[in-house]
Amino acid sequence: MMTELKNDRFLRALQGQPVDCTPVWMMRQAGRYLPEYKATRATAGGFMDLCKNPQLACEVTLQPLERYPLDAAILFSDILTIPDAMGLGLTFETGVGPRFSKTVSSQTDIDALPVIQGESDLGYVMDAVRTIRHELNGRVPLIGFSGSPWTLATYMVEGGSSKDFRRAKVMAYNEPAQMHQLLDKLSQSVINYLNAQVEAGAQALQIFDTWGGALSEAAYEEFSLGYMRKIIAGLIKEKDGQPIPVIVFTKNGGLWLEAIADSGCQCVGLDWTIDIGKARQRIGDKVALQGNMDPTILYASASAIRDEVARILASFGRGNGHIFNLGHGITPDVSPENAGVFINAVHELSASYHQ
Amino acid sequence: MMTELKNDRFLRALQGQPVDCTPVWMMRQAGRYLPEYKATRATAGGFMDLCKNPQLACEVTLQPLERYPLDAAILFSDILTIPDAMGLGLTFETGVGPRFSKTVSSQTDIDALPVIQGESDLGYVMDAVRTIRHELNGRVPLIGFSGSPWTLATYMVEGGSSKDFRRAKVMAYNEPAQMHQLLDKLSQSVINYLNAQVEAGAQALQIFDTWGGALSEAAYEEFSLGYMRKIIAGLIKEKDGQPIPVIVFTKNGGLWLEAIADSGCQCVGLDWTIDIGKARQRIGDKVALQGNMDPTILYASASAIRDEVARILASFGRGNGHIFNLGHGITPDVSPENAGVFINAVHELSASYHQ
Repeated sequence: MMTELKNDRFLRALQGQPVDCTPVWMMRQAGRYLPEYKATRATAGGFMDLCKNPQLACEVTLQPLERYPLDAAILFSDILTIPDAMGLGLTFETGVGPRFSKTVSSQTDIDALPVIQGESDLGYVMDAVRTIRHELNGRVPLIGFSGSPWTLATYMVEGGSSKDFRRAKVMAYNEPAQMHQLLDKLSQSVINYLNAQVEAGAQALQIFDTWGGALSEAAYEEFSLGYMRKIIAGLIKEKDGQPIPVIVFTKNGGLWLEAIADSGCQCVGLDWTIDIGKARQRIGDKVALQGNMDPTILYASASAIRDEVARILASFGRGNGHIFNLGHGITPDVSPENAGVFINAVHELSASYHQ
Repeated sequence: MMTELKNDRFLRALQGQPVDCTPVWMMRQAGRYLPEYKATRATAGGFMDLCKNPQLACEVTLQPLERYPLDAAILFSDILTIPDAMGLGLTFETGVGPRFSKTVSSQTDIDALPVIQGESDLGYVMDAVRTIRHELNGRVPLIGFSGSPWTLATYMVEGGSSKDFRRAKVMAYNEPAQMHQLLDKLSQSVINYLNAQVEAGAQALQIFDTWGGALSEAAYEEFSLGYMRKIIAGLIKEKDGQPIPVIVFTKNGGLWLEAIADSGCQCVGLDWTIDIGKARQRIGDKVALQGNMDPTILYASASAIRDEVARILASFGRGNGHIFNLGHGITPDVSPENAGVFINAVHELSASYHQ
């Protein structure tokens, strides 16, 4: 038997149900802006050592919940666990970001990639999910996640981060069949990975499509959204009688909201460039909306942060189906105090919209 | 008397008039992808030495026209000439990009900035415009340009390029009155600068709002679009009986097309993330549209480039008011051959849409 959930605001909002105030969490909420995170990470060794240690991954997942009244926990992990499990050799260097020791540039490379099975290939992630669920003890729901196939493919083809995704785009435009084979293998792997997270205890899922917004609309549909649609169709719909909602977050995807909302997801994540009230007008109450304060505003004053939270709440207006979040991950040198101002402002200022 | 224009496709398209084929130019068409540009730059010294030498600036402006049947020339210069003339000390270091020796971070700094007069403060730009117009001898029209006030302000406050515009956004959110004073001085300066370019011979103007798209919609209106509207209202409307059309290009501005089209401009520049047919549906034939192929596709094969040109032309469809361009500047290591494939494909494949 699963423990009763003590705070279900996040899951209720995902289903468009009434809540007492708007739920809030932050992308990268377990991260370097917290001194306790840096302390734990220092004991772990490298960043991937932290991801691969279920006890420590659990510890950092829970750290922001000790500080702030957050309405959800998100598994501490990285979007690149799948390509790492495929054998590409992931490392993180300070100031450089992720690097793969092998890259994918040919048909032979793609043929050699295995489809990933969740529990057998990425057991450390599932162990972390189980440990976190146990330690959460029903306090808030746990979000599992994966990178989108296109986003993973960009790192695999480029060998790491990229400004213009030159190699990945050249493969997509010059050798579309080859890119589709890569995206197919990744999609199968993401389905296996996310379903294993649900079996291990994840209560909602987010697909991070960090780089879909670097594509043209036609290429986004062909190389990114189409595969996310396929993934959502392949996911477990409920567990223990509870629906497992899926959030799709395409950064710079504001132009394509209608198509994203039609993907089968239960919630669309918004970056800060779109007015959330206009987003709601465009897709109605078909899906929930998550977002969308510019994370850079966390460097401003407490009153500026509160004003911006108020502006976003007013733009969304009354009614259900809003999960507050930043429009992208919280950055490493934000002060923890300002993160607290943000989270408290959401709860305090949103209550009147839910009366 | 001005020389008769031999190729007026670009100006006709900006006014929504019929053309025999779609006009095309490329942002940064005078640039490092051309070996002849690199040769000229090597003789000039630094990048700003090249900008400040009217003969050499003219030479590199004309180089792409010698290679390709482009329908417009654009003044070779940099968007940061205004802050440089204000005394901030602009330098370019290889691999680092622009740096200012002084930055703007306080009310005192802003009070100390002069409003720039075009001819007296930036005479070298006007000399370049006059030289280019003379050398063009009516071959194609000459585009003048400026950075937008918000875009210039980000560099001035950050001291150079930035990933997240942290300092500029903190000033905007914490000290909005201060940021507005900075933007006011910049707007006055941009009006003076662009009007002087028109007096010197520029036949169309483009405002590059490279970083407006990093803002929320509300902040974009307040800190970027509002000032571009004010600038357009302050510009010379015609010269020698010819209208002087204004193109506004906000990268990542696709969500705000309607507002940009209402700014008083004659043309909206589009990056590649928006479908140009949908952009046309949204703003009708109110203004012309410029764009919008992903510049990264210039790294792909000739047939991929031609296919993408064909797709964009089909999306725009029949009728007037389209200037073809890339969705952002051409990148330094594209092959000149591929740029030629792009330009020829636009002329060849567009003719049937204009019959």
